[in-house]
Amino acid sequence: MRHNMQDRNKILLVAAENLLKKDEIEKVIALLDKLHPADAADIVSALPEDYQKRIFESWDIPHAADAFQEMDEREQVDIVDLLSTPLISDILEEMAADDVADLLGELDKRDAERILASMNREDAKEVLSLMQHKEDTAGGIMTPEFVALRKDMTAQESIELLREKAPSAETIYYVFIVNRENQLVGVISLRDLIIAKPDQRIEEIMNPDVIYVDVDTDQEEVARIMSRYDLLALPVVDHEHHLLGIVTIDDVVDVIEEEASEDIYRLGGVTREERLDSPAIESIRNRLPWMAFNLATAFLASSVVYLFQGSIAKLAILAVFMPIVAGMGGNMGTQTLTVTTRGIALGQLEFKEGIRVIARQVGIGIAIGASTGLLASLVAYFTGVNPYLGLVLFLAMTINMGVAGLAGAGIPIALRLLNQDPALGSGVIVTTFTDVFGFLTFLGLATLMIRLLI
Amino acid sequence: MRHNMQDRNKILLVAAENLLKKDEIEKVIALLDKLHPADAADIVSALPEDYQKRIFESWDIPHAADAFQEMDEREQVDIVDLLSTPLISDILEEMAADDVADLLGELDKRDAERILASMNREDAKEVLSLMQHKEDTAGGIMTPEFVALRKDMTAQESIELLREKAPSAETIYYVFIVNRENQLVGVISLRDLIIAKPDQRIEEIMNPDVIYVDVDTDQEEVARIMSRYDLLALPVVDHEHHLLGIVTIDDVVDVIEEEASEDIYRLGGVTREERLDSPAIESIRNRLPWMAFNLATAFLASSVVYLFQGSIAKLAILAVFMPIVAGMGGNMGTQTLTVTTRGIALGQLEFKEGIRVIARQVGIGIAIGASTGLLASLVAYFTGVNPYLGLVLFLAMTINMGVAGLAGAGIPIALRLLNQDPALGSGVIVTTFTDVFGFLTFLGLATLMIRLLI
Repeated sequence: MRHNMQDRNKILLVAAENLLKKDEIEKVIALLDKLHPADAADIVSALPEDYQKRIFESWDIPHAADAFQEMDEREQVDIVDLLSTPLISDILEEMAADDVADLLGELDKRDAERILASMNREDAKEVLSLMQHKEDTAGGIMTPEFVALRKDMTAQESIELLREKAPSAETIYYVFIVNRENQLVGVISLRDLIIAKPDQRIEEIMNPDVIYVDVDTDQEEVARIMSRYDLLALPVVDHEHHLLGIVTIDDVVDVIEEEASEDIYRLGGVTREERLDSPAIESIRNRLPWMAFNLATAFLASSVVYLFQGSIAKLAILAVFMPIVAGMGGNMGTQTLTVTTRGIALGQLEFKEGIRVIARQVGIGIAIGASTGLLASLVAYFTGVNPYLGLVLFLAMTINMGVAGLAGAGIPIALRLLNQDPALGSGVIVTTFTDVFGFLTFLGLATLMIRLLI
Repeated sequence: MRHNMQDRNKILLVAAENLLKKDEIEKVIALLDKLHPADAADIVSALPEDYQKRIFESWDIPHAADAFQEMDEREQVDIVDLLSTPLISDILEEMAADDVADLLGELDKRDAERILASMNREDAKEVLSLMQHKEDTAGGIMTPEFVALRKDMTAQESIELLREKAPSAETIYYVFIVNRENQLVGVISLRDLIIAKPDQRIEEIMNPDVIYVDVDTDQEEVARIMSRYDLLALPVVDHEHHLLGIVTIDDVVDVIEEEASEDIYRLGGVTREERLDSPAIESIRNRLPWMAFNLATAFLASSVVYLFQGSIAKLAILAVFMPIVAGMGGNMGTQTLTVTTRGIALGQLEFKEGIRVIARQVGIGIAIGASTGLLASLVAYFTGVNPYLGLVLFLAMTINMGVAGLAGAGIPIALRLLNQDPALGSGVIVTTFTDVFGFLTFLGLATLMIRLLI
């Protein structure tokens, strides 16, 4: 099918709504079953709750599970609230254990326990063992459903084993090899397996240099490794080197998007829970504490202005130029913060020293501050402002944009050294620095030179 | 190997440097050949240029090409400048045609032509045909090196064909099926192929509902489709439905990272060319035009303050509170811009109307503006400020944060409707709005009520 899902899905949504109004639920299900599960999930998610409930109650379990698995966690939680425990358990039993573990982690503990109790024992056990790992680690995103080969099998035997087991394994494009103790000893791609001679032993054709991660490795690191080495699957081992599961590339694509969103949100000063379609009241509740903190930082900057009220009373033009110094510093700080945070995320700091990076950003800040400061003072001069005020403007902008380079690069690098997320030093912290120092340098210098200015 | 590349590579880098100082180039190459090409690339990139040149000149071509392919384009361009044309051509002939096309697109036209002329004719032709497509489209990121099956073959014949051709194809995890006219008619996964009965015809077991894209589809859309449908490979067709190439998941991982970086950079007001390790002079040159534009917007906001100089001269405390109104509006605007831009990028606007999203953001802005405005005016009141000034502060913050919601959501949505990149409406445009309106509402209201304030 040509990809034009958005327009097509909108049309299908209207069609489904019309059928539902006429109570033709079977026709809606027939329509959904013809679609890719991701599209079916989209359409069901956009329907009113009572229709969602009725569709899931009439749907055959495998199709329902396929579509349910494609929804995002927030939509899944909403659906879980609509359906009976036995129905939900049936759907979850059809799903990949890692996705079930993620979903149950989002539910109330009591709800999760009730659903687990109603699932068949083996599936529930698998899910429970996954839930022991933190959600954002290799253990949290791996799947335990994979096929491992023993190193003494032949290529032919291996292919037959895969033929038999494949339908239940999430991916077999890479097959991992273990010894008798279930310890990871090698890897072979399905491609190499089928191009091997049938009687070759796995041990001879496998690659013993297999790249793997420990179960508690951060998911961002997992994504970095898979992207760096172009892997489709990455094995996860425990501290005794036993193979526990594999992380597949489709999960990593989600991780990369999630981590990029997280960085973007943090830099913009919003929590990652907030979406464009969140209810307004939820957005307000999410943002208020942060904005109250912002208000405190704004008062901090204002208190600097308060100290210099006397100078402003004598020379109101200071209030006109003061926001230019603070604002330009803020922009410079945000730029530096962006480059530094992203550079750290993309591993550009690898062979470099933090101090040198910070020194360079301070230099860049001073250079740009001096250039734009000169420009600003010329503009001021030609509009008839006292030339000494132009000089104050030039000096304050140069100094403050050096401070912007220092704060914009120094804060995320310091956070990184403290093993914190560099994006935590969000824009607001940096602009507080540039506001405070902007007002301080400009109004301070002006106060020192006040006799020359009046 | 356990993943601890950064520390290990640093140690290996020092070892390589010591060997090179002793002129033991063969030992360095033996060391590099034992590493994953991505790690070898890392170490070579960190060496001084003359060592890089000597390593590549002594390296066997296949290993050199593997490492070269793992470097990023900027590093590749530097290496190209060091080496002779025949050597570069030999290396490029070993590489995937899409990567060669990307690299040549980065070089001077004359250099690219010289290298192409020196490559073998067939490889050069393949590269040239890829270079006709824009770099950020499906055509620009696809590889023409894939194996297609004819629909009348059997499973057994197919596996044999793959066994024969596989080593030259970039991926065979999904195999695409064509008719006699080379038009795309279906897809089969390698997994389904090996679990099929040997004498089944492809036509019977293939999936005819293959998801594909046109050659000129934007790479961001390609990434969205592959991530949405969890695809490892996506076929690319021309306007007559002929199969031209496939996009593989490892390229898409790069696209996702690149597009996320681009959004982050645009929101932060820096160009995507800037890296943490760019030379300072390059960063300054990159940022200066943008900072000059920022200066113009800062003067625009200041000119509003200029209009109210008279009020400030009478009442200097206005200059103290004025940055709070502008700053809080700026933070609110940045938050809204972040949520809206990211929401558009992640497709959350799908079934929603822009107007409703904007209205909700304005509502959120007014609600948060009123809450924090109340808090601010209480703080002002208890520090002994005139209560009417508290009222002005409350009103100005409420109005300005509504404006912040309007600009923060409206600008990216309008850009989207005009088919522009929503992230272009970067933070600076939005904060110009909030600065101008912040000063205007606060100083304007204060001027209207000046008799009550003094």
